[in-house]
This record gives sequence, C-alpha cells and structure tokens, in this order.
Amino acid sequence: MINKLVNEIKKKNAPIVVGLDPMLSYIPSHIVDASVAEFGESLEAAADAVWKYNKAIVDAVYDLIPAVKPQIAMYEQFGIPGLNAFKKTVDYCHEKGLVVIGDVKRGDIGSTSAAYATAHLGKIKIGSKVFTPFDEDFATVNPYLGTDGIKPFVDVCKEEKKGIFFFVLTSNPSSGEFQDRTVDGRPLYELVGEQVRKWGEDCMGDAYSYVGAVVGATYPEMGKILRTIMPKTYILVPGYGAQGGKAADLKPYFNEDGLGAIVNSSRGIIAAYKQDKYASFGSEHFDEASRAATEDMIKDIASIF
Amino acid sequence: MINKLVNEIKKKNAPIVVGLDPMLSYIPSHIVDASVAEFGESLEAAADAVWKYNKAIVDAVYDLIPAVKPQIAMYEQFGIPGLNAFKKTVDYCHEKGLVVIGDVKRGDIGSTSAAYATAHLGKIKIGSKVFTPFDEDFATVNPYLGTDGIKPFVDVCKEEKKGIFFFVLTSNPSSGEFQDRTVDGRPLYELVGEQVRKWGEDCMGDAYSYVGAVVGATYPEMGKILRTIMPKTYILVPGYGAQGGKAADLKPYFNEDGLGAIVNSSRGIIAAYKQDKYASFGSEHFDEASRAATEDMIKDIASIF
Repeated sequence: MINKLVNEIKKKNAPIVVGLDPMLSYIPSHIVDASVAEFGESLEAAADAVWKYNKAIVDAVYDLIPAVKPQIAMYEQFGIPGLNAFKKTVDYCHEKGLVVIGDVKRGDIGSTSAAYATAHLGKIKIGSKVFTPFDEDFATVNPYLGTDGIKPFVDVCKEEKKGIFFFVLTSNPSSGEFQDRTVDGRPLYELVGEQVRKWGEDCMGDAYSYVGAVVGATYPEMGKILRTIMPKTYILVPGYGAQGGKAADLKPYFNEDGLGAIVNSSRGIIAAYKQDKYASFGSEHFDEASRAATEDMIKDIASIF
Repeated sequence: MINKLVNEIKKKNAPIVVGLDPMLSYIPSHIVDASVAEFGESLEAAADAVWKYNKAIVDAVYDLIPAVKPQIAMYEQFGIPGLNAFKKTVDYCHEKGLVVIGDVKRGDIGSTSAAYATAHLGKIKIGSKVFTPFDEDFATVNPYLGTDGIKPFVDVCKEEKKGIFFFVLTSNPSSGEFQDRTVDGRPLYELVGEQVRKWGEDCMGDAYSYVGAVVGATYPEMGKILRTIMPKTYILVPGYGAQGGKAADLKPYFNEDGLGAIVNSSRGIIAAYKQDKYASFGSEHFDEASRAATEDMIKDIASIF
C-alpha cells in the first residue's frame, strides 16, 4: 500500500492528503436541514449530513489528490450512526481510487492491539467467511506502549500489505510536555523516531517502509532531525494551514527526491467556503470552494521545491 | 461518578472490576452456533454471540461487583455490529446498576479529543435534541499528547460528573521501552503520574479525584511509588491473573483506607470455565463458573488487608 501511495503522489504530483474531519458546524445548512427533514433531529440525521458532505467533497477533489484521512473521532461522536458514515466514507473513497488513512490513533497492549489492527486493517473469520470490518489502507497508531503493543499492527500490515503511521511528534501546543522530555541527553520523540525506523526496517516497500510516522508541521526544526533519523519512513504531516504550519516550514520533512512526506489539511479544504478567500463560492458551492483550496494547496506545496 | 464507584466498592466490599473483553474463542459454541443459525456466518452473528455471552455473565455477577470494563477493541473488530454490541452492553450494565469503565484508550489533540470525549462521556446536540452517544461512566485515556489533548476529557468529566483513567504505566512486557525512560533523573511514568495528580486536583469527589490512573499490576514496585505520587487518584490496575499479577503484589496500589485502587480481571472471570479449576461447570454453565471465579477473586484480594 505504501507503493500505491507513493505512485499516486507522483502521478498526481500532489504530496497532500485531505482530512475528512467533519464538524456539524462546517456542514452547510441546506445539507443538515435536508437530513433532519428525512431523519428527524437524531444521530442518524447528523450522520447522514456528514456522509453527504463528505461525498460532495470527495467528488469535487478526488482526481487531484492521492489520499484522504478521515478522523474517526469526528464520526464516533455521533455514535453508531456516525461510525456507519465513517465506513461509508472509507468505502466510497476506495471506489474513487483513493488511499484511505484511518486517523484512529489506536494502540494498546498485545491482544487488544491485535483486535484494533483487525478492526482497521485486517480481516476476521466468522465460521467459513472472512470480513474486513473497517478496511482502511493505513491507520495512525500510538507507539507509547512499546513493541508488544505495536507488533500486532505491524504483523497485520505485512500480511495485508497495508500501512501504519505511528505518532512520533504531534502538532499541538502541549505536545512537548512528554514528547520533548530529555532521555539520555536526547528528546523522547527522537527515541520514538528511532524505534519507528527499526520497526519499519523489515516492512519495506520499493523505496519506503510500510511503517510511517506522524510529525506535526508546527515543529520544522524537529521535523528536520526526524527526517534524518528515519530516512525511509514516510512522514504524515498534520498542522498545515489552520494549525499554523506554512509551506516554507515543510521542506525539511521531505527527502531530496521530493518524496517521503505527505501533508494533511482538514478544515482548510473541507470548510474552505468559510474562509474569506473562498467566500465567493457561497455555502451552496462549498464543494467547488474545496476544489479551489486543494488546487491552491498543491501549488503552495510545489513552491517549496 | 467517582463517589458512586467508591460507594459501590465499599458496599460490595469488592475493589474489583470485571473486564468484558470477549474473544470469539471464549464464547461457548452453543451460543455462537445459535447466533450463526439466526444471522448466518456474519459480523452480526459474532456481535449477537458477544452480546448474549456478556449478558449471561453480567446476570451472574452483577450483585457481587461495583463495575465492569468493556474493552472496545474487542467489539470494534466486529465492525459496526460489534460496536452495537458494545453499546447494548454499556446500557445493560447501567440497568443493572453497574459503573461502566469504557476501556477505549482514546486520546488526540484539541478538537479531536473533544469529539472522543463527547462520544464516550458527553452529550451532543442535534437541533433541539440532546444525545449521549456511547455513554460510559469512565473512559481510559492516553495522556501522552499533553494538556491540550487531555483537557477536553477533563472538561466533559466536570460537566457530566463522569471520570477518566489516564494510562500512566501499562502492564505489558514492553511498557518500559518509553514509559520507564529516565527524564531529569526520574522515570517518565513518574512525570506522567505527577501530571495526572495535577490534572485531578480541581476535579475532586468526596475523597478521590474524578481523574484516575491506569497502573499495571505487573510492576508493584512502581505501583508503590505512583501510589505515593498520586494519593487521591484512583488507580485502575490491569494485569491481575492471566497477565501474571498476584494478590500479594497489589497491596502497594491501595491506600491505608483500603481504597484507592480497583483491580481488573478479564479472561480470568469471563472465560473461567476454560480453567482447570472451574472446568467442572462445563461450557453450558460458563456463567456460574464466572460467578465462582469472581467470588474467589474477591476473597483473594481481601486476603491482602
């Protein structure tokens, strides 16, 4: 799957991923109203609105981008109907040929991690039949429980030719409270980065490992160091745009080949119509605003090479 | 909710929680076969079997115990039908008066953590109506993203009078790879423990904080230190029984008042009928085996005081 991701990035010349993280407040009222008219004021209505909003955005941008990253929390908050909308979104993005990165940040110990790995990347056998529960292509995973917690994810990736992004350094202001603490003279995130590189060494695709890392765009100096520590690790970079990361800051995350990193934008794309810059599209044409914002992001990122 | 948990522990004289972590391999074949006969070989059949198995165990033990801890990964692996079984289990345990600790180990940055907190502990408004998506009483949460990642959970707890257990030191063999690393001359888990104490200081119930910690039974020396660092923090202790933790090791996790800790057993209770000790019940009477194992666990833990 890492080979597919790299090939799609090259083909579309766009090292970007659109974060499908719908908040109800982003969804234009004509969509929400129609869903409420059909399902009443209910979790089902919210989930239906989320799904229709996602579908319109995917239809508007799928030919420009290699991948999407739905953040499962935004669906889980609408309970079971929300998770149905998540699954419909994953399936629809596959139909459109997109790589799907499930931003699930799961992680636990042994058998529990194995169950999460099955849920998001694997297969489960019931009697003589085999099912793929959520069926993303990549999942984001928490590495802080150590090797026996992450091994089940790596094992499933090998078996299914799927991928993982371990979060190494997050983009939030408080990430440093633990992740930056000095261990043996070096920050903890460097140790985690080294471990991620090791975990990835026997999971190689053609040029990059199936085992990737999440490193926030908001800390480019640290991104530079982690790039060196993990040369064959794909880096998923959140924090561009709304969280303050700028294109000029992103260069250190890439390798000389112009590959090795994929930059996420969520709000900046999916709620583009709410920005002054794209306001002229109006909420009726939110999907066209998203397309314009995607084109601008691709140009912005291309400018650094 | 911490007050309710403490009161139930006192009333039932049982500082224990039963982990409802069903694997298909634990479920007696007469239950699985009946579900497959009804739903075919499908995720729905697996989820139905899980739910029936849980219900029988809850019916057999609810009067002995204060709380249950369903591990959501074990449900998520059966996709949407599995999560339906999770929700039915949460609701049924509430009907039986049990405190429900959702072992979800969620955690992310800002708005994403807020969505997870809403999903598991909070409420969401759709138009004029308010919904509680999963509605657990406590949730386990990953603290490694720092204050801005955990604040939304703490905020929801204050508002809803619910609770959190942050994982500080996990029970698995590799937990030390990052959690034990020395930071400023002390292991990282101590720093996390101190932070958990601080986060909990303005979320006090009568004697203990709404903000608790997960500390594995497999490291009693570290448990002792963390008990001292976090005197008013309830400690959820996994790793007893199947993972190797023994009653004698558990004393350091408790305060002098005999409170302050709640010990989890999952497999040891729910799959008791598979142990030699309880084999005479047979798989037909797996629920009675679970009750006998619960009574034995309560006695075993009482022996340390």
